[in-house]
Amino acid sequence: MRSPIPDFLDATLERHRYDLSGATADYIPDLAAADPTKLAICISTLDGVEYDSGDADFEFSIQSMSKPFIYGIALEALGLPAVLDKVGVEPTGEAFNELSLDKTSGKPLNPMINAGALTVHSLLGGEGATLAERTEIVRAGLSRFAGRQLRVDEHIAAGELQEAYRNIAIANMLRSYGVITDDPDEVVRGYINQCSVLVRVKDLAIMAATLAGGGTNPLTGERVLSPRVNRQVLGVMMTCGMYDAAGDWMTEVGVPAKSGVSGGLFGVLPGQLGMATFSPRLDKHGTSVRGAKIFRSLSADLGLHIMNAPEPARSIIRRDRRFVDAKGDMVRIVSLQGAIQWAGAENVMREITAPDEAVDVFALDMRRVYSINEVARRMVVEALRRLEDEGKRVVLLDPENAMGCSGQDSALPDVEIVDSPKELRDLDLRGLRRVRDDFADQTS
Amino acid sequence: MRSPIPDFLDATLERHRYDLSGATADYIPDLAAADPTKLAICISTLDGVEYDSGDADFEFSIQSMSKPFIYGIALEALGLPAVLDKVGVEPTGEAFNELSLDKTSGKPLNPMINAGALTVHSLLGGEGATLAERTEIVRAGLSRFAGRQLRVDEHIAAGELQEAYRNIAIANMLRSYGVITDDPDEVVRGYINQCSVLVRVKDLAIMAATLAGGGTNPLTGERVLSPRVNRQVLGVMMTCGMYDAAGDWMTEVGVPAKSGVSGGLFGVLPGQLGMATFSPRLDKHGTSVRGAKIFRSLSADLGLHIMNAPEPARSIIRRDRRFVDAKGDMVRIVSLQGAIQWAGAENVMREITAPDEAVDVFALDMRRVYSINEVARRMVVEALRRLEDEGKRVVLLDPENAMGCSGQDSALPDVEIVDSPKELRDLDLRGLRRVRDDFADQTS
Amino acid sequence: MRSPIPDFLDATLERHRYDLSGATADYIPDLAAADPTKLAICISTLDGVEYDSGDADFEFSIQSMSKPFIYGIALEALGLPAVLDKVGVEPTGEAFNELSLDKTSGKPLNPMINAGALTVHSLLGGEGATLAERTEIVRAGLSRFAGRQLRVDEHIAAGELQEAYRNIAIANMLRSYGVITDDPDEVVRGYINQCSVLVRVKDLAIMAATLAGGGTNPLTGERVLSPRVNRQVLGVMMTCGMYDAAGDWMTEVGVPAKSGVSGGLFGVLPGQLGMATFSPRLDKHGTSVRGAKIFRSLSADLGLHIMNAPEPARSIIRRDRRFVDAKGDMVRIVSLQGAIQWAGAENVMREITAPDEAVDVFALDMRRVYSINEVARRMVVEALRRLEDEGKRVVLLDPENAMGCSGQDSALPDVEIVDSPKELRDLDLRGLRRVRDDFADQTS
Amino acid sequence: MRSPIPDFLDATLERHRYDLSGATADYIPDLAAADPTKLAICISTLDGVEYDSGDADFEFSIQSMSKPFIYGIALEALGLPAVLDKVGVEPTGEAFNELSLDKTSGKPLNPMINAGALTVHSLLGGEGATLAERTEIVRAGLSRFAGRQLRVDEHIAAGELQEAYRNIAIANMLRSYGVITDDPDEVVRGYINQCSVLVRVKDLAIMAATLAGGGTNPLTGERVLSPRVNRQVLGVMMTCGMYDAAGDWMTEVGVPAKSGVSGGLFGVLPGQLGMATFSPRLDKHGTSVRGAKIFRSLSADLGLHIMNAPEPARSIIRRDRRFVDAKGDMVRIVSLQGAIQWAGAENVMREITAPDEAVDVFALDMRRVYSINEVARRMVVEALRRLEDEGKRVVLLDPENAMGCSGQDSALPDVEIVDSPKELRDLDLRGLRRVRDDFADQTS
Repeated sequence: MRSPIPDFLDATLERHRYDLSGATADYIPDLAAADPTKLAICISTLDGVEYDSGDADFEFSIQSMSKPFIYGIALEALGLPAVLDKVGVEPTGEAFNELSLDKTSGKPLNPMINAGALTVHSLLGGEGATLAERTEIVRAGLSRFAGRQLRVDEHIAAGELQEAYRNIAIANMLRSYGVITDDPDEVVRGYINQCSVLVRVKDLAIMAATLAGGGTNPLTGERVLSPRVNRQVLGVMMTCGMYDAAGDWMTEVGVPAKSGVSGGLFGVLPGQLGMATFSPRLDKHGTSVRGAKIFRSLSADLGLHIMNAPEPARSIIRRDRRFVDAKGDMVRIVSLQGAIQWAGAENVMREITAPDEAVDVFALDMRRVYSINEVARRMVVEALRRLEDEGKRVVLLDPENAMGCSGQDSALPDVEIVDSPKELRDLDLRGLRRVRDDFADQTS
Repeated sequence: MRSPIPDFLDATLERHRYDLSGATADYIPDLAAADPTKLAICISTLDGVEYDSGDADFEFSIQSMSKPFIYGIALEALGLPAVLDKVGVEPTGEAFNELSLDKTSGKPLNPMINAGALTVHSLLGGEGATLAERTEIVRAGLSRFAGRQLRVDEHIAAGELQEAYRNIAIANMLRSYGVITDDPDEVVRGYINQCSVLVRVKDLAIMAATLAGGGTNPLTGERVLSPRVNRQVLGVMMTCGMYDAAGDWMTEVGVPAKSGVSGGLFGVLPGQLGMATFSPRLDKHGTSVRGAKIFRSLSADLGLHIMNAPEPARSIIRRDRRFVDAKGDMVRIVSLQGAIQWAGAENVMREITAPDEAVDVFALDMRRVYSINEVARRMVVEALRRLEDEGKRVVLLDPENAMGCSGQDSALPDVEIVDSPKELRDLDLRGLRRVRDDFADQTS
Repeated sequence: MRSPIPDFLDATLERHRYDLSGATADYIPDLAAADPTKLAICISTLDGVEYDSGDADFEFSIQSMSKPFIYGIALEALGLPAVLDKVGVEPTGEAFNELSLDKTSGKPLNPMINAGALTVHSLLGGEGATLAERTEIVRAGLSRFAGRQLRVDEHIAAGELQEAYRNIAIANMLRSYGVITDDPDEVVRGYINQCSVLVRVKDLAIMAATLAGGGTNPLTGERVLSPRVNRQVLGVMMTCGMYDAAGDWMTEVGVPAKSGVSGGLFGVLPGQLGMATFSPRLDKHGTSVRGAKIFRSLSADLGLHIMNAPEPARSIIRRDRRFVDAKGDMVRIVSLQGAIQWAGAENVMREITAPDEAVDVFALDMRRVYSINEVARRMVVEALRRLEDEGKRVVLLDPENAMGCSGQDSALPDVEIVDSPKELRDLDLRGLRRVRDDFADQTS
Repeated sequence: MRSPIPDFLDATLERHRYDLSGATADYIPDLAAADPTKLAICISTLDGVEYDSGDADFEFSIQSMSKPFIYGIALEALGLPAVLDKVGVEPTGEAFNELSLDKTSGKPLNPMINAGALTVHSLLGGEGATLAERTEIVRAGLSRFAGRQLRVDEHIAAGELQEAYRNIAIANMLRSYGVITDDPDEVVRGYINQCSVLVRVKDLAIMAATLAGGGTNPLTGERVLSPRVNRQVLGVMMTCGMYDAAGDWMTEVGVPAKSGVSGGLFGVLPGQLGMATFSPRLDKHGTSVRGAKIFRSLSADLGLHIMNAPEPARSIIRRDRRFVDAKGDMVRIVSLQGAIQWAGAENVMREITAPDEAVDVFALDMRRVYSINEVARRMVVEALRRLEDEGKRVVLLDPENAMGCSGQDSALPDVEIVDSPKELRDLDLRGLRRVRDDFADQTS
């Protein structure tokens, strides 16, 4: 059976195929000459499955879409403070090719404008890095995001260098403010190499999925960015990624995204997917016309907006039963389900911390919990610890070790961990046997 | 047993209590006279449970924190186009009291700056609404967010009116551009009434939780905003809520938020919680110093940043088994678990649409699915429909009707819906009886 | 005989009469309703003779043309420092109705923009002055410039007040910055009264001629502004008078000027004339279209540009003769001519301070000097003093007392002052009689 | 006898010598290393006499002071429209090193900012001019203003080129907008050569005097700029010369001026003098601290402000007498004096065009007129022509041919021109002899 997803993507492309508005970038020969009929889309899941439609294997230069990735690479290499000291994170209403430097410090307002991206590039490899070194850091870094070896298109780079007046202007202005300390000419050459790395929408979708997955490449499994840096990159894309249409984009589309003048556009839906389109005709902001429209369609059709409230969830607490065991002890068994973050953990904690003098044995059934984050885990541990402090016997039914507890867990020294209802029954919870079938039924 | 959450909030407040930096707003007498030692926090869950610490019952004026709520109310009443025609959604690097009008149209850049908020206020009640009518729309609307009847503090309003030169300036400038069409003086009076509505951090937390829950008040269950409007409000808060420190806030804290010069500050973590703080001393941006620091602490401690990638989830597919039934038909039973959004549905679809000539009967076990959103539901329906088209028999084990299917579902006319494994067995899947115990065990 | 000047003015008006471009101001009812065919010009000499053509007796409101005059009145009343403390003198590229406040201090950039003019108006009469008092100061002050009693048109003022949103906005913004300390509403009302004073081009030409003549009204002979204040007003008009077209105006037309949205326009050529036009249709800067074109014509035709270098002057030294008198003393007689400023005085000084041991008697013939300014006078006095110090006898032939010397002049205690060549001959310059005829001839 | 002018200049320098505020320009090695104690002044008269004090022979680089001169050279070579098409004439509040380009066209706002000066430089020699050609045009052109051969200091130029990041930035930005069409690097090199031409205050004073004299070098007598271009240069200096302190400078000092970061500063008082100072310590605007203070002193002390109204002049009409000649004809003799511009000519015209049926012969005595400009000349000619039209006999007593009339003057075909009172008497104005002595006396 054919998956309906490719059909859906095909249909989406067709809906926008004959929109001829916009024009290819005119200031770079290779971009001006791009075939404006090319149209492609690719969506990558967090486990690296890709759905594509159209000219998904067509290669084009990455251009400004390199900015968030190289920002991440620089943050990893140099640390947040060193980079923030040089480039801010504030949005600017100005177009991407204006200077947008802080009036006082001359510091670029953010890394998504050219001034910021040139500065970030200049930091690669540390002071004194050569053009070749910086170019290789860029190429190798972008390749790690893409999960395959990318390459610089020397012809495109040569063409851009011919017309790089604006970037030369910006780099020299930055040098005059002391923001860039190396030779501005070398920085521009390196940055143009960065912009000239060739990608396909398939690569961009994987690169986006790497950000969506918290920094881990879904194809290679490599951790490219740490969670903190990954969050920083997404935060900056969210506020500064779409230049002067940021507000419109974030209300209408609602995914952190980045476009390039080659016609590429990619977006990140954290925890779900990476997505990319290609269509060379640009609007006045330099963003692909059909690409942006496809993103709008998909955001609406697939409910991708990050501000969409999730559907009302069933309670994280699936069952909450009490039994008297053979010894006459009151046994309480709370069964959890789903993904537990702060809100879920709060829900659990609220239930299990309600004053309950009668209970002697507290059992937490984690079998249907399919994820729990660190904060939630710590909250549940703390709740169990408090129950122990109150003198209760605590049992954890956690065959897949969702809680990550072991007998050595210092926080919960006395917790008893079992792998199945049977084991639970086998604890000397005498009399519990009596409720066994009922329990089994409920949980089956 | 005492919940650790209040302890944690108490500890957080104590950590920041002796930070004396900043100053109370000096241009409004009642604000200048505010007790700067006041300190409070409240977190509300999506089911309306509130955790608070400090002066959580202390009342203060809502000030600019009214802006997103009244924006939502105006959007509901007038529709998006009518409001977007008057007020943009683009961020501005300028301070909140500057004009920030679009150079060409005179339209305020966004509804979070005073020019935008005054314009939004002027739209309430339609052309010709009186001051009293607008004030009541505001009071009643904010009350619906708070889940209790709020009131305007006339004394504060009178004091602000005395010093309302800047708002009078802005309203008149807007009137001169034709953005406001009513009497600017009336608009300012109404807006000051809006700013003078009294709230407690407890109210703000519920108001924030209403936004976090997609527009539904967790206390009253009332749907205050439609999902589309709710998303618009959050989108604008995200890009424009923190004025000229937007980028820093969204990278560091990562929750849409809004502050008021009275010292209040609230934030929204969609799908999880609403949160509010109160501390009157302000930084140069007019944001509560301790409030902002507490938000930074909690964002880090509780992992609240919206760009945090969720923990790697276990697969949405819990089991995928095949049996041969008594008739010799190949039966496949796929059991799902957790919350299913696009990414999960894609995962399911991928599995069930893989070419599989051998299967005659396909059963989908939805019992452990605790939420599924509309897009995912449609995707699964489409996959099942295609299986039917291929001539397979399709059975849905969905006792809680997560899929929302009925026999009349036009998309799936032939699907058989059962409520329990027993029913599944009772279908004339002869021979399936043979695998029954195994199946029961696996799924229990 | 008819003077050719009126013919020339008539011809100039005719050349521009059928230029229908521009539009009357649309935001004030009385201005919008103005008869756009009206066309007038008037030039006033420094002795108050007026040449006019067209609708020269038509009355219209003075509007922004009041700004430089009221600036002068405020400077006289309060002194330069008090006014400069509130309003700057820097040009702004922005349109007249923008705020144009200094980013830091909130101080209006100059008194020719509305923010500055409102602030200047607010200073009139000192703190606590009433609306009526300020209005009368304005009316009386403008009347002194015009040389006749002007009046406020209450109907125009009432109409402007209806639509005064922008000025109310500006005044309130200024109040919020503490630049204006009185009630902003009263200030706006007073300023609108100021703008509603009725004038004719005839009045404006006299008002302009008052500035051209150093502050003295050519009709009444009243000194309205001191020279220092008059210079300040002209300096500000020169850099800030024509808003955002200042550079174009000062290179093309080259006279300090000011326009009003009623259609009036006046210009000042210091030392020569005042000039005014009236034509209600305005360009996008709010300046009369035909008025500006007429100014351009006249500047070119009449050589009015203040940066026109004067024609090469004949030497200020008309004759320099030496004679031996009867006693055998060498007598030197230097005859000056024309208007002497610094450059002329330098020329004189250079000649008379050249080492010249032979001369015993030095006579300076001032009869053909028709003006000498203070600096030049002091320079000549100093030169003569030095001659005396060298032991020479100094005689001043100055029948009209151009040098303002008397026997009591402390700087020149010993100078001998004579009224005619005959007196000079009658001094006991014996032997001079011998050269008398020659001298008489030369100087006749 | 020693002239008091040098003493005065010496005293002025001494008054400011120990003002140590400001700092030498730090971004160009040779400027940073400049001896900050150097102090010089020079004033040049319009006939090329120079008064100097201090280190008047010290050579320094001309820097930005080259801008107005090269602007003039470009205007002469290419015509106003070609240059205005590339560079505007509007002032900007921004500092000299900001881009200050027109938002829409990318055109530099004026030729006094670096963007404008680079563009003007790029126009020299036409499209395709080489660096060497442009440098020689600059060197030769500045030399014509200075009246001696100047030279480029290669060492300074090499030093500036090392740190020319900002100019490279600006030139490349201009190239990206198509304002500059040549290689931006070559333009910067040429412009730095322009800035590195060596001058002394003595040279600058002569250069300034060339502008003050309408474009004619007072030393060499060469006409360097046409009057129209000269006026354009001065107009732009007046509105844009002093960057963001333009308003303050024009109200306080009141002479068009230009400073350079080397510490030089020159000013132009049209029709009177050129003036220059040198002192390397600069204020935050990049203007010499002591230089600016000396200009303020001198403007006040010497009454140099261009908006100073001239002292009230004696009437241009010295005598107006009537006689009856021997034939019984009424003869009117009007004697003029001084410098006649429009205002004077108007005065004359007014008198001689008053209805006066009785007069048969009209004589105009021009002997005491020491200058008359073209407009005034045309006005007087027109008045005389009209008298002739009325049938009057017109006689011009104009021994120095101030009116530039000859027998062939087509406008005045019948005027009789005489050289002396005697000639006037000798015309067959019979009976005039009778009044001869009286006339002779009055005019002697």
